[in-house]
Amino acid sequence: MIHSIDQLVRERLRAIPDYPKPGILFQDITPVLEQPELFRRVTEAMAAPFHGSGITHVAGIEARGFILGGPIAVALGAGFIPIRKPGKLPWKSIRREYALEYGTNVVEVHSDAAGEHSRVLVVDDVLATGGTAAAAGQLLRDLGATLVAWTFLLELGFLDGRKALTGASVTSVTIL
Amino acid sequence: MIHSIDQLVRERLRAIPDYPKPGILFQDITPVLEQPELFRRVTEAMAAPFHGSGITHVAGIEARGFILGGPIAVALGAGFIPIRKPGKLPWKSIRREYALEYGTNVVEVHSDAAGEHSRVLVVDDVLATGGTAAAAGQLLRDLGATLVAWTFLLELGFLDGRKALTGASVTSVTIL
Repeated sequence: MIHSIDQLVRERLRAIPDYPKPGILFQDITPVLEQPELFRRVTEAMAAPFHGSGITHVAGIEARGFILGGPIAVALGAGFIPIRKPGKLPWKSIRREYALEYGTNVVEVHSDAAGEHSRVLVVDDVLATGGTAAAAGQLLRDLGATLVAWTFLLELGFLDGRKALTGASVTSVTIL
Repeated sequence: MIHSIDQLVRERLRAIPDYPKPGILFQDITPVLEQPELFRRVTEAMAAPFHGSGITHVAGIEARGFILGGPIAVALGAGFIPIRKPGKLPWKSIRREYALEYGTNVVEVHSDAAGEHSRVLVVDDVLATGGTAAAAGQLLRDLGATLVAWTFLLELGFLDGRKALTGASVTSVTIL
């Protein structure tokens, strides 16, 4: 019996009620990462649409986007750019602030991490409302880079985060 | 002219004075990650000693250990285990507290991330005093796993962090 990667991911996701706060059903992806064959297949599937599309850099969003972004960068022959929470990058950086349900958040990137010859794929584990991913993409555009696409392991389709991601394609391995 | 990987890493490291606090010369590894060929070669070099040694899981230490640990896990056909800062893991976890110069720090791992049949390689970007890496290794032993080795991109040899890492091998691509 052949299982699709989508099916295998769904079987391994661990739904955690009321995390990080009451009323939220959190989708824990760590059981997907821990299964050797599935971890490899997931990163291959995320990289696959972008072979031959001239990606020079994969930008991973801290922290779980780092885990998936590394193998995707290697698979595509690309470099890796960390998109980090504020104050975590040691060198000259630029920042983008974005709105949350309550308050704001910030993402940062090194000022020399990309430029006008860079073609970047943004990677994160989960697409929820899209706020972080949109800000990450905008940061790379601020550096003059071409944003080719966003790619996610898991998309929470009912939150409609795609609406926030404009001007480049969006792909996900599994959509809930 | 052939450049060794050690030489290439040294050329790309960015030394940042007085970061994160006065008197510290911080070694920024992000320029190594951003160079496509070098990123691939570094992760291959870190994985190379462990082909055929039955590694079932690579445990990456948050956050930069995630970037390197992902590709190393794929290269070794292993699963990936995140070792995280306190409060970041959504499910049942165990923790280890360890001493810093001033105060203490904590690392956590999911309780079901490894067990007595697991053979684990711990990955981080930099070996400094070894406190975090030692605690990460101990966490995995607490779960009953066999700790096979620690591996680092960069080792600050003058801090003698190896002394803190006992009962398993320690390798680094570059030692300063």
